[in-house]
Amino acid sequence: MPHQTRTLIAILGPLLWLAPPSQAQEAPMLGFTSESAEAQRQLEALFDEQMNRDNLREWMQRITSEPFYVGTPHNKENAEWVADLFREWGYDTEIVEYQVLFPKPRIREVEMVAPEYYRALLAEPVLDADATSGVDGRLPTYNAYSADGDVTGELVYVNQGTPDDYEELDRRGIDVRGKIVIARYGGSWRGIKPKVAHEHGALATILYSDPRDDGYFQGDVYPDGPYKMAQGVQRGSVMDMPVYPGDPLTPFVAATADAERMTVEESPTIMKIPVIPLSYSDALPLLRALTGPVAPQAWRGALPITYHLGPGPATVRVHLEFDWNLEPAYNVIARMEGSEYPDEWIIRGNHRDGWAMGAADPASGHVAMMEEARAIGVLARGGQRPKRTIVFTSWDAEEPGLIGSTEWVEHHADELREKAVAYINTDGSGRGFLNIGGSHTLERMANEVARDVEDPQTGVSVWQRTQARRAVSGNAEATTRPDLRISPLGSGSDYTPFLQHLGVASLNVSYGGENRGGSYHSQYDSFDHYTRFGDPGFYYGVTLAKTTGRMTLRLANADVLPMRFANFVDNVSLYVEEVIELLDETRTSTERENELVEMNAYVLAADPTQTYVPPTAKDEVPYLSFASLQNAMREIERSANTLDGEIRRVLESGLTRAQQADVNQVLISTERLMTNDEGLPRRPWFRHQIYAPGFYTGYGVKTLPGIREAIEQRNWEEASEQIELVADMLIRVSDALERAARILEGNEIAQ
Amino acid sequence: MPHQTRTLIAILGPLLWLAPPSQAQEAPMLGFTSESAEAQRQLEALFDEQMNRDNLREWMQRITSEPFYVGTPHNKENAEWVADLFREWGYDTEIVEYQVLFPKPRIREVEMVAPEYYRALLAEPVLDADATSGVDGRLPTYNAYSADGDVTGELVYVNQGTPDDYEELDRRGIDVRGKIVIARYGGSWRGIKPKVAHEHGALATILYSDPRDDGYFQGDVYPDGPYKMAQGVQRGSVMDMPVYPGDPLTPFVAATADAERMTVEESPTIMKIPVIPLSYSDALPLLRALTGPVAPQAWRGALPITYHLGPGPATVRVHLEFDWNLEPAYNVIARMEGSEYPDEWIIRGNHRDGWAMGAADPASGHVAMMEEARAIGVLARGGQRPKRTIVFTSWDAEEPGLIGSTEWVEHHADELREKAVAYINTDGSGRGFLNIGGSHTLERMANEVARDVEDPQTGVSVWQRTQARRAVSGNAEATTRPDLRISPLGSGSDYTPFLQHLGVASLNVSYGGENRGGSYHSQYDSFDHYTRFGDPGFYYGVTLAKTTGRMTLRLANADVLPMRFANFVDNVSLYVEEVIELLDETRTSTERENELVEMNAYVLAADPTQTYVPPTAKDEVPYLSFASLQNAMREIERSANTLDGEIRRVLESGLTRAQQADVNQVLISTERLMTNDEGLPRRPWFRHQIYAPGFYTGYGVKTLPGIREAIEQRNWEEASEQIELVADMLIRVSDALERAARILEGNEIAQ
Repeated sequence: MPHQTRTLIAILGPLLWLAPPSQAQEAPMLGFTSESAEAQRQLEALFDEQMNRDNLREWMQRITSEPFYVGTPHNKENAEWVADLFREWGYDTEIVEYQVLFPKPRIREVEMVAPEYYRALLAEPVLDADATSGVDGRLPTYNAYSADGDVTGELVYVNQGTPDDYEELDRRGIDVRGKIVIARYGGSWRGIKPKVAHEHGALATILYSDPRDDGYFQGDVYPDGPYKMAQGVQRGSVMDMPVYPGDPLTPFVAATADAERMTVEESPTIMKIPVIPLSYSDALPLLRALTGPVAPQAWRGALPITYHLGPGPATVRVHLEFDWNLEPAYNVIARMEGSEYPDEWIIRGNHRDGWAMGAADPASGHVAMMEEARAIGVLARGGQRPKRTIVFTSWDAEEPGLIGSTEWVEHHADELREKAVAYINTDGSGRGFLNIGGSHTLERMANEVARDVEDPQTGVSVWQRTQARRAVSGNAEATTRPDLRISPLGSGSDYTPFLQHLGVASLNVSYGGENRGGSYHSQYDSFDHYTRFGDPGFYYGVTLAKTTGRMTLRLANADVLPMRFANFVDNVSLYVEEVIELLDETRTSTERENELVEMNAYVLAADPTQTYVPPTAKDEVPYLSFASLQNAMREIERSANTLDGEIRRVLESGLTRAQQADVNQVLISTERLMTNDEGLPRRPWFRHQIYAPGFYTGYGVKTLPGIREAIEQRNWEEASEQIELVADMLIRVSDALERAARILEGNEIAQ
Repeated sequence: MPHQTRTLIAILGPLLWLAPPSQAQEAPMLGFTSESAEAQRQLEALFDEQMNRDNLREWMQRITSEPFYVGTPHNKENAEWVADLFREWGYDTEIVEYQVLFPKPRIREVEMVAPEYYRALLAEPVLDADATSGVDGRLPTYNAYSADGDVTGELVYVNQGTPDDYEELDRRGIDVRGKIVIARYGGSWRGIKPKVAHEHGALATILYSDPRDDGYFQGDVYPDGPYKMAQGVQRGSVMDMPVYPGDPLTPFVAATADAERMTVEESPTIMKIPVIPLSYSDALPLLRALTGPVAPQAWRGALPITYHLGPGPATVRVHLEFDWNLEPAYNVIARMEGSEYPDEWIIRGNHRDGWAMGAADPASGHVAMMEEARAIGVLARGGQRPKRTIVFTSWDAEEPGLIGSTEWVEHHADELREKAVAYINTDGSGRGFLNIGGSHTLERMANEVARDVEDPQTGVSVWQRTQARRAVSGNAEATTRPDLRISPLGSGSDYTPFLQHLGVASLNVSYGGENRGGSYHSQYDSFDHYTRFGDPGFYYGVTLAKTTGRMTLRLANADVLPMRFANFVDNVSLYVEEVIELLDETRTSTERENELVEMNAYVLAADPTQTYVPPTAKDEVPYLSFASLQNAMREIERSANTLDGEIRRVLESGLTRAQQADVNQVLISTERLMTNDEGLPRRPWFRHQIYAPGFYTGYGVKTLPGIREAIEQRNWEEASEQIELVADMLIRVSDALERAARILEGNEIAQ
């Protein structure tokens, strides 16, 4: 029990413990008959008993002792060591190698040449309090997949560099063509910033970490506290992942040694302009030298200056050159064959490569996954082998662009389409509250698991603690909806190729909210930092293993796969309502704005002493028919309820083995049916029709992306087409649910 | 025409000028027959012709050449000079003197004694760019009506020092008893901060100006830009004005030389603990030395530190001693007797005293009022004497607590109750948009005036420009409601004794929104600052004079006083809806919070490693009857519409002189009927039942204050009583409106 729990008990007295201890024994278990639920609970209790926090600590320290980004010796050592451990734990293990494009900088120069000279340090200092901050082989601060270039131009501050930010600049008559933009991190995924800057004609993009976002404004800075100190820099990829992730030279196919490759120049996901990240220590002299209009209030950070937009007089030179080499990426793939359904795979993954010392990202999740794998190995040796095949995956080259997982998924696409039941991902994790995102067919199962795992700080279930947090934050349904809603997934970790390229039902799981800090992708995401501020004692590390371990084992052992379609329908209904409202709101706001343009209100409301360029009237927003989508929703709501009811019935009354096999095959297919072969407009690699990363948000999810982004981009024709595609997709899924129900009713023999 | 207008035309081309030039000639004029409206318009055109921007400049420079706070030689000189000018312009002028308590500091010491030593400078530097920043006799930086004291204690940062802020501190287990609090300016009137700190047991209050609020976060600092530089300090009174304004020793009676006075110790409006303001340069070392929990996000300012709450280790000594002397305050009262209704007074006022160099506050408004008075004098000499008496008032001792106006109002209460038609106030004013607050019986008249005054930068009416700004800010009714809504008045300037003590219909008028800055109550509110950043060229100064001049002249010359009661009812209806909703929301949020307390959610959502004290369950919120209030609203809506209709009718068809005299007497009485003799609970000086400054907001208005504050303070019995009182008051007003309508119908002979 961690120290903090004792503090809490001291404060609260016995009150906390009056809540019922756990509904574990009495609660239903989705997908299990009552007898198999009983056995499963015993298995899970045994699983929990294996958990050893010391393993997590020891493994993290080992993994993070030296830099382990793609292509480093220590990365390869880690792969071999992890593979050896998996073998030792009883897994059929292989290391799968790909040759992936991984540029490393040869020249990094950022200098302000006017109105005064400043040369950016571009370096993170060694700290006595951080043991690995001085190790050899550290990766310099840079953005992978920036273009080469040597450009000089006046500087413009573009806030977070989103399309909306450029509209604000337009209003002030500021054009970034031929200029260099400086954008703070946040608000969108970092790769969006240079992409949008390039679309607007900028020569280069400088990214920086404003202390408002993860520095002193948020809390004490490292090493006194967890937040980013003045010289801390966030590294990261700027590959255009919303187009496709993975090796930029080999979309759709695996980056094997002999794969056919594009050239760097041909690749659409490599940035077309130079990009480099700065610390706020390096950004301050540049921002302070800007004049021009004062930045809008929401754009201002926490530096002790007046934030001006420019352009200039600050004039900056950015000179970057990279070695554009292929590097080996090593995935570790460890299989434990299922005792009953070897061709139904539960895949569990976490990446293993890190930008700098990578303690939180990815080691915190990786060591939890390892402990989970070890425990399952112990159970298997004790005769409790999973019914379905479990595949543990330790991905390489996630940081540059989900490369390890993407290449493997592209490599094994056909087999995975046939066999993959679900993919459960973890990545960085910390102390606090349970976060789950993923496929809503798994929402109920994920909730049941969360109700059965104990929070190490409070003794209540992790479900109850997360519920409390949501309730206190004003989320009304937290106390009324039976299940806590899980988030839809955008991108940012290795579930993307599984979920959004192949249509494999996926979950992404972490703990956090009490481990805030500013070490992300900096040199100070270290063992020292993590064990002080991340998850001291690794209490949440083993809690994560208990959570994802249960998910994996329930998926592996369920009689009927633990999917509940009413949850799916409930969430998709929200998205349908949202896109309908989005069109209406777009229409209303367009009418309103056009009225304001018409009455010259924008001009009259502006300060005449300052440059102001009013917006122009926009095209009218038509009414579109959502009828087919709404009809499809009604149909799938009906079939989902029927199937959920049939599953409940047969788990009580029994089903034949043939029924079981047949119905599970249909269930596995449901997420696949949510994709289409053409993919999304302008990005065919992304095939899921419900979940996608936003084209202009990056990691941020867009649900019903085809419809939603068409409306956002005011492409009414495309929106109409996409409405029909989504309606067709829902009918396909509904048909599958009906078929599954008929199998259980005994009215259909599966093919 | 100012330079900026030309810029605007250059940008926009002729588009701007396509709007109809002005509705002036065709529009109706409330309270005037068509013939008298015609004459009035000619008069107003002549009035406009008198306007001379050079006068405003010259007068401001003279007024602000030396310090002119209460008791200074230059203040007295200004009074005599202003009185001489008024006499020259044809006014019957007197200087009325009161003896008012005005403490000045003898000792001011603020030092941090741990963890390191820092002694606050408490001084604003002389700037080459600001001619008066080095003049002799400047008032030191302090808060008037702070207590004497010499206290030492650990420091606690309390954000803006409002009651809600102390609830946040409670949640973190932080108690300010025996401590010294530091609060940033903003969020409530400054006097609320030490009052609430004292209620919570603090030893002293330090106020400071965070650069987030009016320093570099907002824009370039003085002298490069208008915002507050590091050593700028906001002076100001901390008298407990929501209890009563005016001389603290003579509530309800005039502070004449021979008045009976309380002692300083007896006065309830003098602070009970020491209070002193700091610049952020002086505050930074203190705030930086705090540890303890990190301040909530909304509490953090723009200093380059992590904001901690304390308590300590920063330990601070505050040592303040004052000379508690009476000083003479000189009001200048200038009358021009009305040609037809000498006993109906239109009172127009602006204060004349300033804390430091007082260019914006109050000289900008004062010089506009002077130009207005001069022009009316010219018209009178030309034979166009106003029909009603106009009284121009130049108040002294506003800054310490609305003292000059309050004492005069208390002195002449009986005569004013009988004769005062309306009071029109101005104070600091600048460049930009028209702001009007006041009695809603005057809303229509104020709107008609605004439609007739041209904006000097754009050429459209000031009404249209303000409408544009509201429309662009998302105020939907700006383009649908015939009149722009005027704000209800709280406090902060000299309308308070007229409106809230006596019940004289009042308006407060200014321009602003494009003259932002941080000079308020600092040494740098100077002629140099104002002419660079306030209203360069005094274009808005004469626009203000045109606006309030029209209001004054229309009130002075109208056939039937220009009041429209449908506007009054429309606004009061909103307030009634608001208090009904407030009770419902309080009930809903109480139920919700009690549910969260019950389920232990607050504790479970908190980080167990940090001190957290959960809230306790609150008493249930009963349902209260608003029926009498709702019935009264229905009644007054009917009588208002009848009266408005009758007024329209008689202005078209004619009315007798006796009817005119009688109906105007009733109209004058209506605002008086909105008061009651007992005043508000716990503050009998404040008698208005619709408008009051908030007991815990200071300047911020509380409409229907008796009801609203009772609900906010969860005093359900008092809320019920107040509902009945307000209902009774509305019935009294409604009866008066009915009587006025009957007079116009010829069915009633007035007493």
